Amino acid sequence: MPAKGGAVLVTSFRPPRPGVPGAGDGVRAGTPDVLVIGGGIIGLVVAWRAAERGLRVTVVDPEPGGGAARVAAGMLAAVTELHHGEEELLELNLASSARWPAFADELADAAGVGDGSALGYRRCGTLAVALDADDRAELRDLHALQTRCGLQARWLTGRECRRLEPMLAPGVRGGLRVEDDHQVDPRPVVDALLIAAERAGVVFVRREARGVWSRSGRVGGAVLADGARLAAGRVVVAAGSRGGRLEGLPEEARPPVRPVKGQVLRLRMPTGIPFLSRTVRAVVRGSHVYLVPRESGELVIGATSEEQGWDTTVTAGGVYELLRDAHELVPGLTELPLVEAVAGLRPGTPDNAPLLGGTGTPGLLIAGGHHRNGVLLAPITGDLMAEYLTTGTMPERGRPFSPERFAPVGAGVPGGPGASRVPHPIEEVL
Amino acid sequence: MPAKGGAVLVTSFRPPRPGVPGAGDGVRAGTPDVLVIGGGIIGLVVAWRAAERGLRVTVVDPEPGGGAARVAAGMLAAVTELHHGEEELLELNLASSARWPAFADELADAAGVGDGSALGYRRCGTLAVALDADDRAELRDLHALQTRCGLQARWLTGRECRRLEPMLAPGVRGGLRVEDDHQVDPRPVVDALLIAAERAGVVFVRREARGVWSRSGRVGGAVLADGARLAAGRVVVAAGSRGGRLEGLPEEARPPVRPVKGQVLRLRMPTGIPFLSRTVRAVVRGSHVYLVPRESGELVIGATSEEQGWDTTVTAGGVYELLRDAHELVPGLTELPLVEAVAGLRPGTPDNAPLLGGTGTPGLLIAGGHHRNGVLLAPITGDLMAEYLTTGTMPERGRPFSPERFAPVGAGVPGGPGASRVPHPIEEVL
Repeated sequence: MPAKGGAVLVTSFRPPRPGVPGAGDGVRAGTPDVLVIGGGIIGLVVAWRAAERGLRVTVVDPEPGGGAARVAAGMLAAVTELHHGEEELLELNLASSARWPAFADELADAAGVGDGSALGYRRCGTLAVALDADDRAELRDLHALQTRCGLQARWLTGRECRRLEPMLAPGVRGGLRVEDDHQVDPRPVVDALLIAAERAGVVFVRREARGVWSRSGRVGGAVLADGARLAAGRVVVAAGSRGGRLEGLPEEARPPVRPVKGQVLRLRMPTGIPFLSRTVRAVVRGSHVYLVPRESGELVIGATSEEQGWDTTVTAGGVYELLRDAHELVPGLTELPLVEAVAGLRPGTPDNAPLLGGTGTPGLLIAGGHHRNGVLLAPITGDLMAEYLTTGTMPERGRPFSPERFAPVGAGVPGGPGASRVPHPIEEVL
Repeated sequence: MPAKGGAVLVTSFRPPRPGVPGAGDGVRAGTPDVLVIGGGIIGLVVAWRAAERGLRVTVVDPEPGGGAARVAAGMLAAVTELHHGEEELLELNLASSARWPAFADELADAAGVGDGSALGYRRCGTLAVALDADDRAELRDLHALQTRCGLQARWLTGRECRRLEPMLAPGVRGGLRVEDDHQVDPRPVVDALLIAAERAGVVFVRREARGVWSRSGRVGGAVLADGARLAAGRVVVAAGSRGGRLEGLPEEARPPVRPVKGQVLRLRMPTGIPFLSRTVRAVVRGSHVYLVPRESGELVIGATSEEQGWDTTVTAGGVYELLRDAHELVPGLTELPLVEAVAGLRPGTPDNAPLLGGTGTPGLLIAGGHHRNGVLLAPITGDLMAEYLTTGTMPERGRPFSPERFAPVGAGVPGGPGASRVPHPIEEVL
């Protein structure tokens, strides 16, 4: 169908390359093998990794490089953010955390910006502390769970915590030292992904996709805001919290994502004086706050509270609570310049785990629902999705995260078990 | 003396107009009658009013329309900000407050933007409240002082306060209703002053003045940052807190101003729902906070704390304290979007009163040191300075504020009483 209303489509599809999977077989020559809807950190890493493997990839996003990662603090907190009942997710998180050092170096090299340190990758570890008896009990529970899962975390007294981080308040009653939870700076990461993707041949369509279109039960591409259509061999929905709102998705394949608001402050630490040397997290009378100090002097403050809804307003109350809790934890930060306050939307799912791979609908894949772990899971998401896109098989590690785990039983492709944990074979027919 | 170092002076002096005071008499034809150093609210109002009276006026400022008024909340709080021992200043403040309605209309008309309401002039009154017994005692003292000075202010119970402003916290213990303290929005005021001044023929030199130059004991103009010189019949220093740092000022004529930091937040109120209907000020356990709600939906929050120094950083602690106190006063504001946090420098003087008029140094005048009252005093400052510049006589009301009150006795012009309260006659020789 032609574009409506005289809309101009700002893009240029490259000619098909022979020998590349996805070229040919019923898809019009010149259309990309993969169309990624959403150019946030997940969409970009999928696009980059898929293009590296020889696929022709297009990303549709009015502002690629935006999204939740622009707001995120960049904690790689597989161990510290462990929750009961999320052991499968833990394995994925640990695997991605282990990939980060090589991934950061490789990405920085691909973007021509140096090595992983240029992306703020910092092996600094994390210190999680408690301020009162209840907070300490909560942290003790976490420690017990970590130990049961075979993770490394060492209990410290309040004095030991302050010896590590002298800016901590005298009221700190104890804490957990987690050596393996590091940090990265999501903004340079996303910037580097944009460059690396472009260098790998990814085409960017800087327009809004309002949905997908299908023919004979197969998703054939994206519909732009002005009604224009883009065709592609397969479509990857990587639209973050917006993924569930796209038009044209079959109900059984609609990603069950909800927006979870996160509000973050950026302060500037003094140069030359050590302020904080590692990520500091705390339970402050029941509410969770984190402080992520970067080599650049930036100090990111956020909370793990879970406000629902589409609103990305920075509220007076949100800023107040962050400053109050952070101040109680590190009183000396009152003197620091406040540089930025920003809010973003993380895509939450019913089980807090991501959606990775094919759906019951041919041609439609999802890479989304990463919630608080979008930055942490970027390396493994790129690898799993690129493997799936090129070979048609999701590696073992990715299978528990199939989007089909949320599809109603019996829904989707005719005769297929909608809730099966492996992608249905019909999807692999390109 | 010619400009040094090949600097280009970006300005165009207009030819002299015959019959205008200051033209001729020893001053080179083509030079302006008055050179105002500083294009903040005070410099602009002096320039506009002087140009309206036929003087040729130039304003030197790299960014005219900037300065402390861009940060200020715009309370016209002559009654509410009364302090012991400042009765002379009170008279000036009341006189300027009374001029504001006509001034706002006249300025808006001169700038072609409508009437005073376009500048956010709002006859809303002020409610000053207290949250604990000590705060109430402080407010009672203020009320007694206001009554002694013949000012209108009515004591209200906490319940009466909440009836006026239902968003106030239940803990409000009483307050003062001040019907005559209104508000204006300083940003459109400054924008209008820029237009009105330009329309009245004021020339803007968008460069930094680093000082003044003199010949034979008479100030002859300004020296720009690159060493270039501007000549003028007289120089008015209206450089705010920077006034005391200008080079080339005789010590006895240097304005005794110090920078006083003010930090302000801007929130957005919901439209259609009444949130606050008048300026609300409070003593919150000893610290002073104010909330200024505009017709536009903007809510400005600031404090009257007095931090010294040249730093204009917005600090985490400053924002935290403002939000904490404002939240205690009006708990419902936590839901409001935080739009801006900004800090500026008010020019304080030893007696908290402004410096208006001539100095002991011929050719050198000051309009500065307005501290918290720059917006309030803009109308009368423009009138007094323009009168003085055109007639050579400072009106009675302005004389207590002569800059010479701070000059050492016997300093300044030969034989002149340095500390006299009236301008020395030699200054009037043009």
